[in-house]
Amino acid sequence: MSDVLDKKDFQIIKEGITYPKGIKAAGIKSGIRFIKKDLALIYSEKIANSCGMFTKNKFKAAPLIVTEKNLSLSKGKLQAILINSGIANACTGDKGLADAWETVSYVSDDLKINKEHIAVTSTGKIGEFLPLIKIKTGLKEAIKKLSIHGGTEAAEAILTTDTEKKEIAVSFDLNGQEVRIGGMAKGSGMIHPNMATMLGFITSDIFIKGKLLQDALKEVVEKTFNMISVDGDTSTNDMVLLMANGLAGNQLITEKNDVYDKFLEALYYVAEYLAKCIAKDGEGATKLIEVEVQNASSYNDAKKIAKAVINSPLVKTAIFGKDPNWGRILAAAGYSGAVVDTEKVDLYLKEKIVENGQPLKFSRQAIHKYLEISDEVKILIDLKMGKESAIAWGCDLTYDYVKINTKYS
Amino acid sequence: MSDVLDKKDFQIIKEGITYPKGIKAAGIKSGIRFIKKDLALIYSEKIANSCGMFTKNKFKAAPLIVTEKNLSLSKGKLQAILINSGIANACTGDKGLADAWETVSYVSDDLKINKEHIAVTSTGKIGEFLPLIKIKTGLKEAIKKLSIHGGTEAAEAILTTDTEKKEIAVSFDLNGQEVRIGGMAKGSGMIHPNMATMLGFITSDIFIKGKLLQDALKEVVEKTFNMISVDGDTSTNDMVLLMANGLAGNQLITEKNDVYDKFLEALYYVAEYLAKCIAKDGEGATKLIEVEVQNASSYNDAKKIAKAVINSPLVKTAIFGKDPNWGRILAAAGYSGAVVDTEKVDLYLKEKIVENGQPLKFSRQAIHKYLEISDEVKILIDLKMGKESAIAWGCDLTYDYVKINTKYS
Repeated sequence: MSDVLDKKDFQIIKEGITYPKGIKAAGIKSGIRFIKKDLALIYSEKIANSCGMFTKNKFKAAPLIVTEKNLSLSKGKLQAILINSGIANACTGDKGLADAWETVSYVSDDLKINKEHIAVTSTGKIGEFLPLIKIKTGLKEAIKKLSIHGGTEAAEAILTTDTEKKEIAVSFDLNGQEVRIGGMAKGSGMIHPNMATMLGFITSDIFIKGKLLQDALKEVVEKTFNMISVDGDTSTNDMVLLMANGLAGNQLITEKNDVYDKFLEALYYVAEYLAKCIAKDGEGATKLIEVEVQNASSYNDAKKIAKAVINSPLVKTAIFGKDPNWGRILAAAGYSGAVVDTEKVDLYLKEKIVENGQPLKFSRQAIHKYLEISDEVKILIDLKMGKESAIAWGCDLTYDYVKINTKYS
Repeated sequence: MSDVLDKKDFQIIKEGITYPKGIKAAGIKSGIRFIKKDLALIYSEKIANSCGMFTKNKFKAAPLIVTEKNLSLSKGKLQAILINSGIANACTGDKGLADAWETVSYVSDDLKINKEHIAVTSTGKIGEFLPLIKIKTGLKEAIKKLSIHGGTEAAEAILTTDTEKKEIAVSFDLNGQEVRIGGMAKGSGMIHPNMATMLGFITSDIFIKGKLLQDALKEVVEKTFNMISVDGDTSTNDMVLLMANGLAGNQLITEKNDVYDKFLEALYYVAEYLAKCIAKDGEGATKLIEVEVQNASSYNDAKKIAKAVINSPLVKTAIFGKDPNWGRILAAAGYSGAVVDTEKVDLYLKEKIVENGQPLKFSRQAIHKYLEISDEVKILIDLKMGKESAIAWGCDLTYDYVKINTKYS
């Protein structure tokens, strides 16, 4: 699907979650963090078909439990999402859970909407309790500021150690009706498959059945957000939420036809864009690394290898060092657990440098130069065994990763 | 088995593989590396019952293929082991394999022993060919220097980015006969369970059936060498070899009785000592980290958690930063894949700091101080679910890890 851009099937807009019709947002400083914005609110004028994907970490943070519960009670409907950064409300036991419910009440009272239509999410330090008064007060300010231009401020308020906001929007035509999708995300450390302290929020005005919306999110997240890795650590708070309020006015999508595929393609673009932003903005990262595995016997094998390579500290430090250390890449493929015929593997880093498992003669200096000047480094592994492929994204491992994570708490 | 020392069942000697009767060794400079020793030879006067454990990396290096083949041809007998550092002879295809066989011929010719009684091992850069002339010439010098005092020089010659040699020996009494075990190892980067660029060589003069020797090695390696991790990368060249030449004069051990157990205990001590040395000397490491998981439902669960915690870059950087960031430890336990009751877990870092999944009040400063002054940091996780436990060892993640691995090739 990486050629979607060429197809000109949709337009790309720089920002963000408030681009779809009927979506407002705000991002404000509530005082949880010292200087930065720390509270974001997303609001849909109309109750929206909604769904989410959540961390597989056993220590699931309180807000995730609450949000999953509400999505279940409301049978997949949301109208507002409250997000705070600074404190994760994870490992906080019964009090943490009660606190998360309390913040749901605040939103329900102030926006006059049903509790079950509210999602709450948190990101930041584990084991600390939410400052409820600050959130209660901050929420009132956020509601006052809710605006169709509030997407960027919301995208700023959800960041932690991220260096840049991450937002995008697209629009496309469905039988003469313009449909819009907007998204924002935060990432940085503790980023790994199966949802990391990675938050993703995607809004749309598309009119689509809830079940199809969920299928679309699952399919797309597996190949985008779940294929990025900063450090292999899966957080307690990962979550991706998708709301679709139907205000675009398209005919209700009820089956997986061409129209659904068009939506899927656009959704995939938004999710891949945000996922790559997260990988590129990994703590201390200087480069985005893309690992593509081609011609594996199974998708699972392709995925295992792509993830093993993207997670390898030795590969990550080599890329940081602009070192075409192909041996480390093959070694990672070799320990991934996937089926590999070591005498067949080709490896490309700018050019083909390994053929049938053995190094070709190549100019180290040319590859070094490529690694030096490229913000995005692409590693391609051709297994020459089958027809399945997978792509994973990550970043290099640098002094600054160590610095940031040494001084965090 | 960590209380073996208290039992005074055996004596501990500082060095090394030549301590057992009939074992000689040498370590010399053959010129593969610029300045450092790079070629080691271990020789047993008598053909020894021998066995090995090998990397599970699909890209298995040529010398491992040769050594496994010889162990199979000789039905578990070795008389000499040749080890070079500097070049791994991995991903070198047919020529690499032929080269490894060629080095076997050199040893066979010069020592006048059967080819099938020879093991060869390599560690260093991947994808480069062995300089055969240097090895051929160096071998002659090594043979001249073979000595019962050559253990330490051999231990030095097998190192790569290690900062210290790793050797140990023990002796114990079996029904009036003194039995000895000696060992040496190298580690540093690319160290992860299932054999890393970790080489371990253990010699003994015990008289024991080959099958029992193999069982003992497997049992011990699983709980020692395979429970260490520096960076989660499993190398192409990992290998642990064990030779037992029977010269101690004890009665042949033919079954798993008390005598076997005594040997097992001593072997475990040697292997654990070497494994911990490797973990502690991980690239750039300033601290050994020991993670013990207690009262898991299964050994497998205990192992999964211990390994997830020891592998977590966020835990490793936190320890380097002297930061009692218990949340990262629990998060790693949570994503390990093991069964965890998040409301039961206790966590100890110097003292109990988490109870039933929630933080206790503790002095951050006191724990910070503990992390500051300790060369060995112990993390204890009590799952309170069953009776199984596991221990894993690793090291902190530091600026120097990045530095070393950025500049390697």
